[in-house]
Amino acid sequence: MSTLETARWKNDALRIIDQRYLPEKLVYWDITTLQEVYDAIKTLAIRGAPAIGIAAAYGAYIGIRGVSDTTDKKQFLALFTERCEYLNSSRPTAVNLKWALDRIQHVLKEHSENATVAELKMTILAQAHAILNEDIAMCRAIGENGQDVLKGCNTILTHCNAGGLATSGYGTALAPVYVAKERGHKIHVYADETRPLLQGARITAFELQQTGIPVTVICDNMAAWAMKQGKIDAVIVGADRIAANGDTANKIGTYSLAIAARTHDIPFYVAAPYSTFDLSLKDGSTTPIEERDAREVTNGFGRRTVPENVAVYNPAFDVTPASLITAIITEKRIWYPPFS
Amino acid sequence: MSTLETARWKNDALRIIDQRYLPEKLVYWDITTLQEVYDAIKTLAIRGAPAIGIAAAYGAYIGIRGVSDTTDKKQFLALFTERCEYLNSSRPTAVNLKWALDRIQHVLKEHSENATVAELKMTILAQAHAILNEDIAMCRAIGENGQDVLKGCNTILTHCNAGGLATSGYGTALAPVYVAKERGHKIHVYADETRPLLQGARITAFELQQTGIPVTVICDNMAAWAMKQGKIDAVIVGADRIAANGDTANKIGTYSLAIAARTHDIPFYVAAPYSTFDLSLKDGSTTPIEERDAREVTNGFGRRTVPENVAVYNPAFDVTPASLITAIITEKRIWYPPFS
Repeated sequence: MSTLETARWKNDALRIIDQRYLPEKLVYWDITTLQEVYDAIKTLAIRGAPAIGIAAAYGAYIGIRGVSDTTDKKQFLALFTERCEYLNSSRPTAVNLKWALDRIQHVLKEHSENATVAELKMTILAQAHAILNEDIAMCRAIGENGQDVLKGCNTILTHCNAGGLATSGYGTALAPVYVAKERGHKIHVYADETRPLLQGARITAFELQQTGIPVTVICDNMAAWAMKQGKIDAVIVGADRIAANGDTANKIGTYSLAIAARTHDIPFYVAAPYSTFDLSLKDGSTTPIEERDAREVTNGFGRRTVPENVAVYNPAFDVTPASLITAIITEKRIWYPPFS
Repeated sequence: MSTLETARWKNDALRIIDQRYLPEKLVYWDITTLQEVYDAIKTLAIRGAPAIGIAAAYGAYIGIRGVSDTTDKKQFLALFTERCEYLNSSRPTAVNLKWALDRIQHVLKEHSENATVAELKMTILAQAHAILNEDIAMCRAIGENGQDVLKGCNTILTHCNAGGLATSGYGTALAPVYVAKERGHKIHVYADETRPLLQGARITAFELQQTGIPVTVICDNMAAWAMKQGKIDAVIVGADRIAANGDTANKIGTYSLAIAARTHDIPFYVAAPYSTFDLSLKDGSTTPIEERDAREVTNGFGRRTVPENVAVYNPAFDVTPASLITAIITEKRIWYPPFS
């Protein structure tokens, strides 16, 4: 089964799905300039930590490929660093963006002594391909590891979008659902719409519909009632950062879901690459929580829905304590509590 | 302190706040014809069970006042019944609409033998005034009874709109907050935006802002996290129907809030007129739950947010079990468990 191709290298261009048009239209964008890569990341045309990393890696290549092969190598490397810094400034808080660019620069340094400028360019492109392929493999491994927890499940509930459109492969939270489908085990997904930015309604519903997986959208405040009605067998969500003890920062609303799942004795899973663990954090109490612009809440749907000058509290993430998490599914293995 | 005048009798017209323009504009509508009353209820220009009852009562008078005083009494009463039936068809499931019209017809029957047509018209108008004034008194009594539970509270969280704009007075869930303000005890209200129809963001935030009560809007999925942050001292919500054992049907999302409140040891109150108890229901398990049009979720406020042809589950209400309710505040007294 093939998922949507969120980011791919095609005909010497970075072809992405421009997610700003979702769910109304599936629009591809063939990106061929550094400025376009910057804009695509900045404007959320491409989003999701792994997908941003991949776009940045190809962007690094796109940004430097036009430089003449006869350029002085030192000058070439300085130019490359400068263009990576520019790309990195597109979304300064995106961890994978910096990670991908640092990785390429590190490899370049290792290879620069005996390589020509032309060879260095090929090294950059090869690294971008590697980051893409590793991401696809990581997603698939999460999906395969997740089969154990899906036994006996007919429905899962997910929050936000931790699917193929946030990665280049099967996604994280949705990967077990895609692998299950390959194996003939069809799972019905309930997708929280995920206010304020509606990634569940717009993006998760879109990618599941496109890949033929049955999906039902609910408002976030309906999840507990859906559980009470017996509609949900398990919850699977992604993660932005996991502390050493298993406390998990993820999109706002995840914590509320975890409480409701526990109340109804429904298993609650986190699916994320191993790199999401931040072992420098003992627990989630010190996880930084970004508060975002009130306009995401007040002007979310095209018209203003909150009176002018009314205060808004808009935390982008919350932290679900490890005690509410049944297991964490990674590409290496499934971790059960105690997670430390 | 005066709240907004949701529905009043002014200059021989029913003056309502046309809530379709909220929160952008505060527009009054002076209604002088039967057709306008019907349209105002049908289109949700006026909403909230008590407010609809009041509009219908004045509508009954507006609908019949033009009939000549010399009309045959039997013919007058037949015409009146016919026009009440027309009004009642504007929102057939609104309990207070039917209740108000039935009440007036009942009083008319009692008075018709010795009264002239002109006197009967005055009886109808007097009944409408009585329904309005009883509603204002009911709201105030709930507000006063609610002072006990607000002791030591600086912040409350509410859901949907059970405020002045759903009644003609102080509302139900918000009445304790208004009375507290009169007495110099200022309470900060957190208002859930309340998807899908955003009554919290549009209407609760508006009326609190207009009356000078500090209000912060949050998305529904942020409530549990706000509780975890220590931002919420108590939750107060309204009710659509309360079973004999205290199980409470209210706007979808109430159940989720009640679970989160219990998890954080935050008191959870229901505030409603005594008439909301439906003693024919032993518990909430047989409360009918209306499922509404998917377009409320998919096409909320200007743009489509869910792909075409994706399934939506859109229950309008949920049932909070009595076990999660700290107390029920009515105009008669505060009821503590066991409620039966």
